[in-house]
Order: sequence, then structure tokens, then C-alpha cells
Amino acid sequence: MNKVNLTEKLSLINDHWNPRIAAELNGQYVKLVKFQGPFTWHHHENEDELFMVVKGRFRMEYRDDDGEQSVWIEEGEMIVVPRGVEHRPVADDECEVLLFEPVATLNTGNTENELTRKELSHI
Amino acid sequence: MNKVNLTEKLSLINDHWNPRIAAELNGQYVKLVKFQGPFTWHHHENEDELFMVVKGRFRMEYRDDDGEQSVWIEEGEMIVVPRGVEHRPVADDECEVLLFEPVATLNTGNTENELTRKELSHI
Repeated sequence: MNKVNLTEKLSLINDHWNPRIAAELNGQYVKLVKFQGPFTWHHHENEDELFMVVKGRFRMEYRDDDGEQSVWIEEGEMIVVPRGVEHRPVADDECEVLLFEPVATLNTGNTENELTRKELSHI
Repeated sequence: MNKVNLTEKLSLINDHWNPRIAAELNGQYVKLVKFQGPFTWHHHENEDELFMVVKGRFRMEYRDDDGEQSVWIEEGEMIVVPRGVEHRPVADDECEVLLFEPVATLNTGNTENELTRKELSHI
């Protein structure tokens, strides 16, 4: 039963869009990641995805029946992106984020490119 | 796709040990709750439970092969209590907490008493 200090763990991360595993429970991972710049448009077929901002802010862009939308997620805020929804996070400045999602979730969802991370390390 | 501001939601809670549902994803709830005083010793047969401190601090007491242990969980820290582990949170002063756990999780686990909350409201 080890506790995790979010800020301490995030201080060990020196890259962007490369999630680390901070905890596992009930078939889900808690991941920590730093965002900077725009990510890739994608969706997840079978997984809902929670984003919580630990430090900074980012903009979640997504597409629904009304077209392209966006919402700022500020420090201390979270958002759930339901499965199937096309989205991409964009961080104008570096942003520290906690993710909660099923173990099977691939960061780029239905897309594969240079940002895809298949082997995640623990932190 | 509505974002949730943790501090705003927590400011709506005026009681203790009464979790509210702040989000649902992948069969899990994100709950918000205020702790004050000692909770009930209990365990969960089938659910791991994550506690994250949004404001304040609390002490997680638990029992393992070495007997009774405890660890302070401070603001910005989290801990996972694995299924089967006897535990009880204790907050000397009011503490604001986020929980991640399966939808089926009962707050008092294998115990039922005046602190048990079966019908949770959304916040």
C-alpha cells in the first residue's frame, strides 16, 4: 500500500505525450502524462477516458453533431470523453495531466503514428 | 461532454462520509466526499479503491500481516487500497477526497451500519 504523490511523480517526466502508469486498480490504469502542443485526432472504440489537470490547462477539442467544439480544462478540473467521440487534447503550454482509463487503452486510439505509445513504463 | 471542477463540486457538499457521484466511466464511478473523524473498519471483497486528497489530509489505517499500520495521505496524494484489505480512513480535520472505484462499491464494504450509503446522488 504505497501512496503516490502526483507532483513528485510528474517531476520525473521529461517528455510529452508519453503516459506513465502510476497505479492500477479494477482493470484500470491511473496514468500521468505531460502534454505540450497538439495531439492527434482519434477516438477509442471501447473505452471512456478521464482527463484531470494537475497543473496548467489544456483545450479538449472534439467533434459532435454540431461539428468541432472545444472546452478548456483548467487546473483542478476533469472531463470524461465517452468512447466513440473524436477528440484531441491541445496544450499551448506544458500541462500536467492524470488519466484514468482501462488497461487496454491505447493513447492514440484508432490511429497509429509517431505519437503512439504501446509499451508504458511504471513511475 | 461537461467538465467537472472538483473544488466547486466539493463546495456543494455539507456533510461527511456521504459520497456523491461526479462522473461515470467504464463501469467505474468518480466520487467526491468529505471526511471528518474516524470511519468504519471494513474491506471490499471484489473492489480495489482509490483515494485522492483534493484538500486537507487524512490517515489511512489498515491491517496487514504485520498488524495495524497507517499512512498519511496529503493534498495531491493518492493511495489504492486493494480488495480484501481491512482499512478505515480517519480525518482529524475535514478533508476533501476523490474516489475512483467500481459502480458496485458500497462505502462500508462488508459492514453495514449508520455510515452505510446505498443510494448515492449525483453532483
